[in-house]
Amino acid sequence: MTIVYLAIVCGLIAVAYGFLTSQQVLSAPAGNEKMRDIAAAIQEGAKAYLGRQYQTIAIVGAVMAVLIWVFIDQMGAPLSLISFLIGSVLSGAAGFVGMNISVRANVRTAEAARTSLQGGLTLAFRSGAITGMLVAGLGLLSIAVLFWYLVAQADYAPNGRPVIAALTALAFGASLISIFARLGGGIFTKAADVGADLVGKVEAGIPEDDPRNPAVIADNVGDNVGDCAGMAADLFETYVVTLGLTMVSIALLVKGLPDALLLKLMALPLIVGGVCILTSIAGTYMVRLGKGQSIMGALYKGLWTTVLLSIPAIYFVTQYALGDMNAPLSGLGVDPGAFLDASSSAITAEAAIGLATGPEFTGNSLFFCMMIGLVVTGLLVWITEYYTGTNYRPVKSIAKASETGHGTNVIQGLAISLESTALPTLVIVVAVIASFQIAGIIGVAFAATSLLALAGMVVALDAYGPVTDNAGGIAEMAGLPDDVRHRTDALDAVGNTTKAVTKGYAIGSAALAALVLFGAYTTDLKEFFPDVRVDFSLSNPYVIVGLLLGALLPYLFGAFGMTAVGRAAGAVVEDVRAQFRDNPGIMAGTSRPDYARTVDIVTKAAIKEMIIPSLLPVLSPIAVYFIITAVAGQAEGFAALGAMLLGVIVSGLFVAISMTSGGGAWDNAKKYIEDGNHGGKGSEAHKAAVTGDTVGDPYKDTAGPAVNPMIKITNIVALLLLAALAAGQGVG
Amino acid sequence: MTIVYLAIVCGLIAVAYGFLTSQQVLSAPAGNEKMRDIAAAIQEGAKAYLGRQYQTIAIVGAVMAVLIWVFIDQMGAPLSLISFLIGSVLSGAAGFVGMNISVRANVRTAEAARTSLQGGLTLAFRSGAITGMLVAGLGLLSIAVLFWYLVAQADYAPNGRPVIAALTALAFGASLISIFARLGGGIFTKAADVGADLVGKVEAGIPEDDPRNPAVIADNVGDNVGDCAGMAADLFETYVVTLGLTMVSIALLVKGLPDALLLKLMALPLIVGGVCILTSIAGTYMVRLGKGQSIMGALYKGLWTTVLLSIPAIYFVTQYALGDMNAPLSGLGVDPGAFLDASSSAITAEAAIGLATGPEFTGNSLFFCMMIGLVVTGLLVWITEYYTGTNYRPVKSIAKASETGHGTNVIQGLAISLESTALPTLVIVVAVIASFQIAGIIGVAFAATSLLALAGMVVALDAYGPVTDNAGGIAEMAGLPDDVRHRTDALDAVGNTTKAVTKGYAIGSAALAALVLFGAYTTDLKEFFPDVRVDFSLSNPYVIVGLLLGALLPYLFGAFGMTAVGRAAGAVVEDVRAQFRDNPGIMAGTSRPDYARTVDIVTKAAIKEMIIPSLLPVLSPIAVYFIITAVAGQAEGFAALGAMLLGVIVSGLFVAISMTSGGGAWDNAKKYIEDGNHGGKGSEAHKAAVTGDTVGDPYKDTAGPAVNPMIKITNIVALLLLAALAAGQGVG
Repeated sequence: MTIVYLAIVCGLIAVAYGFLTSQQVLSAPAGNEKMRDIAAAIQEGAKAYLGRQYQTIAIVGAVMAVLIWVFIDQMGAPLSLISFLIGSVLSGAAGFVGMNISVRANVRTAEAARTSLQGGLTLAFRSGAITGMLVAGLGLLSIAVLFWYLVAQADYAPNGRPVIAALTALAFGASLISIFARLGGGIFTKAADVGADLVGKVEAGIPEDDPRNPAVIADNVGDNVGDCAGMAADLFETYVVTLGLTMVSIALLVKGLPDALLLKLMALPLIVGGVCILTSIAGTYMVRLGKGQSIMGALYKGLWTTVLLSIPAIYFVTQYALGDMNAPLSGLGVDPGAFLDASSSAITAEAAIGLATGPEFTGNSLFFCMMIGLVVTGLLVWITEYYTGTNYRPVKSIAKASETGHGTNVIQGLAISLESTALPTLVIVVAVIASFQIAGIIGVAFAATSLLALAGMVVALDAYGPVTDNAGGIAEMAGLPDDVRHRTDALDAVGNTTKAVTKGYAIGSAALAALVLFGAYTTDLKEFFPDVRVDFSLSNPYVIVGLLLGALLPYLFGAFGMTAVGRAAGAVVEDVRAQFRDNPGIMAGTSRPDYARTVDIVTKAAIKEMIIPSLLPVLSPIAVYFIITAVAGQAEGFAALGAMLLGVIVSGLFVAISMTSGGGAWDNAKKYIEDGNHGGKGSEAHKAAVTGDTVGDPYKDTAGPAVNPMIKITNIVALLLLAALAAGQGVG
Repeated sequence: MTIVYLAIVCGLIAVAYGFLTSQQVLSAPAGNEKMRDIAAAIQEGAKAYLGRQYQTIAIVGAVMAVLIWVFIDQMGAPLSLISFLIGSVLSGAAGFVGMNISVRANVRTAEAARTSLQGGLTLAFRSGAITGMLVAGLGLLSIAVLFWYLVAQADYAPNGRPVIAALTALAFGASLISIFARLGGGIFTKAADVGADLVGKVEAGIPEDDPRNPAVIADNVGDNVGDCAGMAADLFETYVVTLGLTMVSIALLVKGLPDALLLKLMALPLIVGGVCILTSIAGTYMVRLGKGQSIMGALYKGLWTTVLLSIPAIYFVTQYALGDMNAPLSGLGVDPGAFLDASSSAITAEAAIGLATGPEFTGNSLFFCMMIGLVVTGLLVWITEYYTGTNYRPVKSIAKASETGHGTNVIQGLAISLESTALPTLVIVVAVIASFQIAGIIGVAFAATSLLALAGMVVALDAYGPVTDNAGGIAEMAGLPDDVRHRTDALDAVGNTTKAVTKGYAIGSAALAALVLFGAYTTDLKEFFPDVRVDFSLSNPYVIVGLLLGALLPYLFGAFGMTAVGRAAGAVVEDVRAQFRDNPGIMAGTSRPDYARTVDIVTKAAIKEMIIPSLLPVLSPIAVYFIITAVAGQAEGFAALGAMLLGVIVSGLFVAISMTSGGGAWDNAKKYIEDGNHGGKGSEAHKAAVTGDTVGDPYKDTAGPAVNPMIKITNIVALLLLAALAAGQGVG
């Protein structure tokens, strides 16, 4: 248990870091009165939205809580219910706290940017780091404390069913909140952004962030509730699911270890997460501009410091936890039967050997798998920068294509978005093969764990983006001098890339985790329903059916998301037009637009639009199971459901990466032109690039990123469904 | 053999219909001298392009032929080699003949439209019907004659390895040509179209098809080489692969039937194809305008006539071929072991029963499965019309979104394209489940066969499109009165929908065939490598790896296709700009642009750009097999390769449908606005809709449709690889 205690300490350090750093940030000067006024309007709007969003989610959450209590806890001790509530409340809290610091850091960043680029960078990045450390810290605390309570207080076996059930319910709570937060926030931010641009830039011919535009506050609110709160909830979810499911899969798959060693192995992901919080905190202090004044370079210094420090740190804690790094870790081996038997296959000797690269795994094997996770992080960051950075072929090719018009800009952007899926897929494929060869499914799980262990740092890089975006808006609205706006713009351009990085990172971890989640599904299936022989072979037509239906989900979800943004943006356009029409003083600059009215309209639209798509991944697995079971029997129902879990990741990986990378590339192609290339601002190429940027907006900030929690939800609902069916039949 | 003879007679009737109808079409008046001049330029360009394209393909084909002879025929009797050549030559011929009639019918349609809508419709549709009947007729003849020769002349057993090998090689020949033709033609047509629009409509401000635009002839040539020749080669391929693979899967899977009955069962797809040619010909005579002058209604009359006549016709030939419709057809049953054993699974009793819905299948079961194929055809047509027709929500929503600008038009179009995948997927899923429940894998194969049996009629509906498109171009360039252009425009708008229908139909059949192709792969695997135990279960990480790599192919292929169009269109823009600059007489209307130069530039660009993407699906399966085998052994190599075959369809289905339906919707949203809605021609909404149309062009006519042959090639290459590996080891 010492290991778990140490992990809890690391989690507390993260929270303390967040608290102390936020004192620092808040003590920075908040600018003149006009700036403070604007910031107050943004704060008010963001809080109002988040409050309403959480109220709505609370209703869905309450229904789910009742269902969990009735079907999973069987109306008995509310173990799953309470775990679900912890996951959902903390996921919401991560978003809320992140948003709360972000709406205060924005104006301070604008003020700091008055004096220097470094000043703005430091403030914005510190604010991002607060969100990052809170996401990782709260995530780690939730799992570690729950695990500690169950094992040390309630005295359950570390690999017992109650522990597995509680960790799964915790993950479900986090996922459920995060899909609503990601999607609702994504719809809000892009509806406001697109609406403001359409009616402001295009119709009225006023610049971005012009205070005469009634939608301008809504646009800035959107950055906070979407890119900050939504993102934080999403990464909290990814963190909890990945670390939690790694522990679950150890519990399910590793058989025959002495109890003490099993406990240590299960606690290893926690201490790895803990130590990486420390290396992430160390990394945040390395974010400083060098001689070249490269902002990306400064951020990279922080990231690479964290990565490099994590290598010895992970080695150290692995050795500390497991003792002998060369001792075989699975006395009786990762039981390949436990895994493969769940399919209708009797294990052949060859197949067992294929899986059994595991049995001989050692502390060293796990360390190597975790190194693979770090390498994957580095490669995903590098690939994303290549596809979305202004220095490379993809963004330049879109900018060039803008010269021949709107159509060619969009065509080239779509081509890049399709292409951008290739390298990440190859990286993930190689990582799966390598970590599987080293230590089987458990190896893949540990690769995903070390990937996610860096979440604190990665989220810090991301959460910095909306702060600088807002700072630019405040500088513009408060009429600060041009050089301030130039500094905030420079900070913001890098934010486009770092935002894309986080999304690629989250979806990449989902792909790595897919095999682990499927492993948990099949093992559960075997334990709960030992008599149902399920054939997961690709020659079973119900497997094909499941793959196709799973693959459909991201498409349908994407369609909902895109349509929702279009519809909500339309509502913004109409409101702004009405305000201009009814109050001519607005355009003249003599009277103030009714910002709150527009915020209110976007709020209502976003909340209305988020509900149905968010329920899609919750209800689809249940529907598929019951329909196929009715048509072809329970075994085929389970087969189709299992295949659906893989179908959703096989197609979701591509949909998500193409949307997030493509959208980032479009955005930066516009910025590249605004930097004076291909005719610069106001040229025909620039107009075309604005169109591309508009198209990329819902791609990269609404539909694309929400695919990640959608995939997890589908998987976790399937696990819960198994548990509920088993409990209903008195099997579980 | 009588059944095969009857099928051959039907094939000959189709060819005769084509010959006679082309006499009729050619005897129609070809308009005035100016019209004939323009038509001659189009003919010349189309022939020049197709000639160059076939020369290039011939080189690739020759290399493949040598490889097939060396590795498959093992340098012995060139059975596979000759079958491959037949497939490739006839696929090329289908495209060539279709193009040839289309470039003659265009000017005659324009002339006929001078007098009446019905006149134009009749001529254009007849010309389409010629292509349609030749595609189905040549496809049927190639399989039937080959089968007849092998069984009746060379005396091989109908289910013997030589027959299977020859049918597979025939399919490969057809597929290889068709991917080049689809992609090369697709790049040509859209590069010319986009290039002409960008520099003509956007820069020079001259209308579409204005004779002063040097790219205008290239644009019209493109309709013929892409939408006609490329499409014909594609559908020829789909027809041959589907019918051929149905026969192959009967040979591989149905065990224990008496020889005579087995021969009849194998010939059943041929006679079904034959009789549906007759019902298709009957249908063509029903294409007449009713009182409402609805063009779509007239075409539907033809289609529904064919569908309705096919119901009793299929019943009749099934009964004729099999005799007792209630007698169980698989004496010892579709051997489920043959199928499932290929995976590492020892068959459990339950799994065998799951598959064994087959054993009791009868003539009636197969008839019902074929009815499912007809229902799927009807539903796919209806769904495609819903998503691309101007009367329904999707197209109207894009038109409405155009009011707020280019960006919202594209966002809504992308949302519709994502959404449009849902209903076809559900239809296919239900069809797979239903036909599988009725008669197992063989049932699914027969559903696909009856779907494709209507290819003659469906291709007729499609090939009518480019003729009317050209007719409109000629009317414009020859300065015919406005009412002629109105008539050709009306014909053309319907063509956008029918073109989308064919693409959805082709990809839908590919999804149905996926299970059959995978069945052939696993059965081959088991026969060739009985000692290699391959685990196709989803819990095998190499299966996940294969699924991901397969899913990547359509994305990468789509990226190549889109980029190629962008690049080639750029070359067109530069050439046209140069012509305008060097020869000011062109814009003044005093001197004639150098049309041939532009055609030549597009030709070179399209041929250069088609090669690498077309080789992607040929080389990827081979690379995946060898790399994974090197890393993890042969069993995992086979597992990853098999999973790749399903990955490519699971993702390709969505990529293809979203691109073709979305593109059609964008195109018709523009037409809907041009009909006077949302401000009509010249409004801001119209400009936005033109952007959407430009984006949709490479989506629907280049990248999307080429996904269908790409999927087939990947599958067939895998089958050939197995045969080559087996032959190399002396196993085959």
